[in-house]
Amino acid sequence: MTDAYAAAGVDIDATNRAVERMKRLAAGTARPEVLAGIGPFAALWRLGEYREPVLVSSTDGVGTKVKLTRVLGRYDTVGRDLVNHCVNDIFTAGAAPLFFLDYLANNGLSEDQKVAIVEGMAEACREAGCSLIGGETADMPGVYEAGDFDIAGFIVGVCERGALLDGSRIRPGDALLALPANGLHTNGYSLVRQVFQIALGGSETEQHDRAVLAQIVPGTETSLGEALMVPHHCYLHELRPLLPRITALAHITGGGMYENVPRILPEGVAAEFDRSSWSVPPLFQFIQRMGNIPDAEMFRTFNMGVGMVIAAAPEACETLLRELPGARQAGRVVAAAPGEPRVLLR
Amino acid sequence: MTDAYAAAGVDIDATNRAVERMKRLAAGTARPEVLAGIGPFAALWRLGEYREPVLVSSTDGVGTKVKLTRVLGRYDTVGRDLVNHCVNDIFTAGAAPLFFLDYLANNGLSEDQKVAIVEGMAEACREAGCSLIGGETADMPGVYEAGDFDIAGFIVGVCERGALLDGSRIRPGDALLALPANGLHTNGYSLVRQVFQIALGGSETEQHDRAVLAQIVPGTETSLGEALMVPHHCYLHELRPLLPRITALAHITGGGMYENVPRILPEGVAAEFDRSSWSVPPLFQFIQRMGNIPDAEMFRTFNMGVGMVIAAAPEACETLLRELPGARQAGRVVAAAPGEPRVLLR
Repeated sequence: MTDAYAAAGVDIDATNRAVERMKRLAAGTARPEVLAGIGPFAALWRLGEYREPVLVSSTDGVGTKVKLTRVLGRYDTVGRDLVNHCVNDIFTAGAAPLFFLDYLANNGLSEDQKVAIVEGMAEACREAGCSLIGGETADMPGVYEAGDFDIAGFIVGVCERGALLDGSRIRPGDALLALPANGLHTNGYSLVRQVFQIALGGSETEQHDRAVLAQIVPGTETSLGEALMVPHHCYLHELRPLLPRITALAHITGGGMYENVPRILPEGVAAEFDRSSWSVPPLFQFIQRMGNIPDAEMFRTFNMGVGMVIAAAPEACETLLRELPGARQAGRVVAAAPGEPRVLLR
Repeated sequence: MTDAYAAAGVDIDATNRAVERMKRLAAGTARPEVLAGIGPFAALWRLGEYREPVLVSSTDGVGTKVKLTRVLGRYDTVGRDLVNHCVNDIFTAGAAPLFFLDYLANNGLSEDQKVAIVEGMAEACREAGCSLIGGETADMPGVYEAGDFDIAGFIVGVCERGALLDGSRIRPGDALLALPANGLHTNGYSLVRQVFQIALGGSETEQHDRAVLAQIVPGTETSLGEALMVPHHCYLHELRPLLPRITALAHITGGGMYENVPRILPEGVAAEFDRSSWSVPPLFQFIQRMGNIPDAEMFRTFNMGVGMVIAAAPEACETLLRELPGARQAGRVVAAAPGEPRVLLR
């Protein structure tokens, strides 16, 4: 029945089979609040009892990390990247995640590849205690190159209004703690692809790409491919019990510390970091050396080993540093006149 | 500072300028419930007073309609398609929209093109009474062909639990009303591109594409390009006052009536439509003739002129038909044994 559509690059039956398998994966993440999962035209979530509920939402993609997925033939991690990125984003407001929906667009992914991507999402959702309750799978011949795909995620969490975190209470003298990133997370992949001339598109270069990605990152025992594919770390569980001691959180994503820390700073202050307080991981050093990239651009593109910045009152630091083994006191909040830089890296 | 990244196909400064303009567009849609708009890591929405609030959410794209946007150089309508599709989806559950977030991924769209896309979203959001509160703009060289893009939307609405619509109360003898679609809405574009051999990718065919799209659709005074670009109709305002008289709603999207009507049918019933009760618009007839496409496939791919199906008790029909000038009584619910077809088109 779908002959003409299949010739147009869309196999409705194969897509439907993938969707059935995705529904089962989603069902495995269902909390009791889910009234209807994937299937009808919309997903239903019973909110439950809150005094002054604030819905906290965010949307994200994983950038061109999707291109490495294809070259390395590993489709099971990129969904985890997506969910964890979204969970971290809403957690900066103090919100626990409720539910997640995904958009998966592709040209010619197999049923198994699509399902592997969504399986990564479902696992990360379950770990974060949120439910995968909806999604759209779009077959898009002619928009994506054959074998290419993109994913976007949407998350909704909730927080009592009185418990919302934001930067308005940040004061000069507050400490800035750096939490380690476990890799590039989901940012800077277009630059990495340019530096190493990999995953730029076209199947003719796949052998070259795989050879480049097989090299060991100097100073580690990990291949470049493995290091680049490590899924975005989720900070939810380690930080949640510490929320009462945290003033504000900045998730270090695209734009690095230069662009993300100012998002939480009130007027009149700047963030001053001591670069000697943490070591930039070998992966970033390798990228910088191979690409001959200036320091300032590295810090404006990559997280440089810092995935989350915590602003906290000085008296909260001892507890935070004790409870967060990887954390470093990396800087402090200082007074700044209008027009002065908001982020200083010394 | 971003020289190397710009060479990689990502111009952070141009992207930031587009984002600033998008923020202003989003601000124009802000309802009082918006506590923080686009800007920090997440968007905040104060839910307000409900007895038993159910959050109704959905995500969607617009399929390969994005390819026509590019060929015709019209970027102001596709955002409207996206929002209206999402609004219709959650409205099938009886939910009014609260907020919308968008994902826009592209390779080399200009700042103005990006802003035009989001402007369409913002206008449609304002018309639907929902707030555009977040979004992600991703520059994805190597994933999309130069000049290509994709968009996904995410919507959250709310409904009191007791007012939720679903198909569980549908009974044999109920009427099925068809509401007119104003075009293809957002489905079947890959097949249309194949039939007319247009917008298949690559800039060398743009002159050919434009010539094909300039032809007048037989039986109309509209060019094929104009007819294909009409934005997805939003049914919210015409149907909302009639909700007490509606048993269930099926939004006719990908998969047509065959796949979408069964989503709301309870066990033991089928939907029987009389094809003579509405006329299939000339655009669908033209596509079918040019592609030599069997009837069954047309009805499984396109909405065929029916954008929404209302299930209603017989005694509600008179009012519904009077209040909805374009509506037709197109069929009825009949008893069906397990395994029998769920949708019959006679």
